Amino acid sequence: MSLIVQKYGGTSVGTVERIQAVADKVIGFRKAGHDIVVVVSAMSGETNRLIGLAGAMQSTPDARELDVLVSTGEQVTIALLCMALKAKGQDARSYTGGQVRILTDNSHTKARIQDIDDANMRADLELGRVVVVAGFQGVDLDGNITTLGRGGSDTTGVALAAALKADECQIYTDVDGVYTTDPRVVEKARRLEKITFEEMLEMASLGSKVLQIRAVEFAGKYQVPLRVLSSFKDGPGTLITIDEEISDMEQPVVSGIAFNRDEAKLSIRGVPDSPGVASKILAPIGEANIEVDVIVQNMAADNTNDLTFTVHRNELEKAKAVLESVAKDLNAREVVGDDTIVKVSVVGVGMRSHAGVASTMFNALAAENINIQLITTSEIKISVIIEEKYLELAVRCLHSAFDLDAA
Amino acid sequence: MSLIVQKYGGTSVGTVERIQAVADKVIGFRKAGHDIVVVVSAMSGETNRLIGLAGAMQSTPDARELDVLVSTGEQVTIALLCMALKAKGQDARSYTGGQVRILTDNSHTKARIQDIDDANMRADLELGRVVVVAGFQGVDLDGNITTLGRGGSDTTGVALAAALKADECQIYTDVDGVYTTDPRVVEKARRLEKITFEEMLEMASLGSKVLQIRAVEFAGKYQVPLRVLSSFKDGPGTLITIDEEISDMEQPVVSGIAFNRDEAKLSIRGVPDSPGVASKILAPIGEANIEVDVIVQNMAADNTNDLTFTVHRNELEKAKAVLESVAKDLNAREVVGDDTIVKVSVVGVGMRSHAGVASTMFNALAAENINIQLITTSEIKISVIIEEKYLELAVRCLHSAFDLDAA
Repeated sequence: MSLIVQKYGGTSVGTVERIQAVADKVIGFRKAGHDIVVVVSAMSGETNRLIGLAGAMQSTPDARELDVLVSTGEQVTIALLCMALKAKGQDARSYTGGQVRILTDNSHTKARIQDIDDANMRADLELGRVVVVAGFQGVDLDGNITTLGRGGSDTTGVALAAALKADECQIYTDVDGVYTTDPRVVEKARRLEKITFEEMLEMASLGSKVLQIRAVEFAGKYQVPLRVLSSFKDGPGTLITIDEEISDMEQPVVSGIAFNRDEAKLSIRGVPDSPGVASKILAPIGEANIEVDVIVQNMAADNTNDLTFTVHRNELEKAKAVLESVAKDLNAREVVGDDTIVKVSVVGVGMRSHAGVASTMFNALAAENINIQLITTSEIKISVIIEEKYLELAVRCLHSAFDLDAA
Repeated sequence: MSLIVQKYGGTSVGTVERIQAVADKVIGFRKAGHDIVVVVSAMSGETNRLIGLAGAMQSTPDARELDVLVSTGEQVTIALLCMALKAKGQDARSYTGGQVRILTDNSHTKARIQDIDDANMRADLELGRVVVVAGFQGVDLDGNITTLGRGGSDTTGVALAAALKADECQIYTDVDGVYTTDPRVVEKARRLEKITFEEMLEMASLGSKVLQIRAVEFAGKYQVPLRVLSSFKDGPGTLITIDEEISDMEQPVVSGIAFNRDEAKLSIRGVPDSPGVASKILAPIGEANIEVDVIVQNMAADNTNDLTFTVHRNELEKAKAVLESVAKDLNAREVVGDDTIVKVSVVGVGMRSHAGVASTMFNALAAENINIQLITTSEIKISVIIEEKYLELAVRCLHSAFDLDAA
């Protein structure tokens, strides 16, 4: 008998029928002898409806009151799921974040979990009940309702699993696992049986948006075995694990190919060299609350500097305006923006101990005449910036080059 | 400067625009120098929508989970009203029933308030904030969400006013006060400036459904001055008061004419006389959970008993079936049901000290050839059962006979 925490997202509980299907799935696990704690999101569409009402009241809704408002979405789902379970003969009990209690700091709309009281949940589990907890929400020390930010239900699931020392945290979603790359781009993409937390972090942050990054970090930190599965289709999903020792002798060097279409590139050229020039350029970007991803700096032959970085495409114009003002101050030659680029990355813990991953990658791209504009590397990832039109070609040739194609 | 508790019902907060109008009204009272605590219901239609979802899950929804579900309705409104107030520059803070905290017993869906903590509300009022509280809900000693039953928001308003020793509890609704009778029946019906709690109870229970009976009882018990006003139309409304000394020298004997179209009459005739016969007849009705209103017993010339009583029209068939089985056991002659009757009542604390109210009433009805089938009296009320077709005529002639017509 195991203790399993299961999290079902908004699509999985989007209608009366789907909530009943979740109840059936949960009862199946109970019948197999497991103790089950279920975390649910708001029914799909509900959070947006509530945020729409808030926007009609106040152009920037008060953060405390916004949390009071949107937390009702999950509260509706926990009650309905408990009713569905009881109607099918399974005793169950619902908890809001405050009732558990999931103690957070007081940063409304983006609160961080500080402590979880597991006493009530344990008492219910001992009575044979299924415990149903509202995701995404908590309560601060003064009793104010807080929320963890969008997608925070994943974090609730992992945090409960950590607090309860659960055997597994299962995240039910509309995909049946983590793939070597996006199956819409590469037909031969394969579902991974296992992936490490670090690889998952790199895959998630690069655009394979299966799981909240924060939930993965949390699971890694507290060593909670995490499994991504489909709500709608049976199957083992993908296990995200701390264990790098995959038994298969032919452990792949690269686990997956990630990509991101949402970036744009900005360059400032001909900046006269002086100490701290990169900081002088990037500090105003940070102050404007623009997040920067890849950063590359070159010294040109004339002893001036070129600095290139990428930002979210939506922020290109804003970043360019900031940079043009910086360029004037620093007496730089020019500022150039480009929103027709993409980032493609190979990810794998295996590359730590294998040389030659970079050359395999660059050779594969060169063989297709794909020009690499920027390169950036980390311990388990190599990313390149290329022209947007080559995205699919690049992902497919890398998927093959690293032997990821399904047989 | 006064402390005023205001309660706005579902229709008054039914749309974004109406919530903004409530915010304007509240700010008007703040500008006049008053401290304001607002109690709100769910937006109209929302509670029914949630109950519909519950019904789709479980034929008889679990009471605890039903409270978790429907309490979200008021939680949405408190957040939206606070946002509207803040958008208009008035600081405000929302509280769920649990956050106040409004402590109740654990009778889910019909909980009774046991205690109210006023500390948080007082601290906010001192900071110049408007306090916005979710009506209809509380929390039990174990932290479970409870609700007070439909219309319980009136009770929340009165209970908060009592706890805070407020100067007045204002109930905003879609009528502009309590009338001498239904203005749809008598064109000359007048709005009452004042009415006593006891009169209001008799008027409310007889069909003038302006206020929850329970809220009126509560206000009477804790001597909270209660005022019924319109959300949509300015005006003084009607003050419901403990004070029977109305300054007007020409104090009316009768304050209003109430009526009820929802009753039906049942008679059991020719019951051989024996001790406790009334109890033998009525006990099975009570056991069948059928509420009885008027009861009249006669001894006939042949020494048998006739017993007549009224029940809700919806329960006539059920009551008749019970009574027919009783009639067989008691060897009674016959059972007769009649659902074409109505009850008309004159109500007024003034009749306590005035003889002759009954004869004025019976004379007025006789002058219109209206036959009285049953009579029942209390200290401040005389009710008659008459044929349904005479309802309007009876109410109008009584309204005139007791000098209630508007000039």
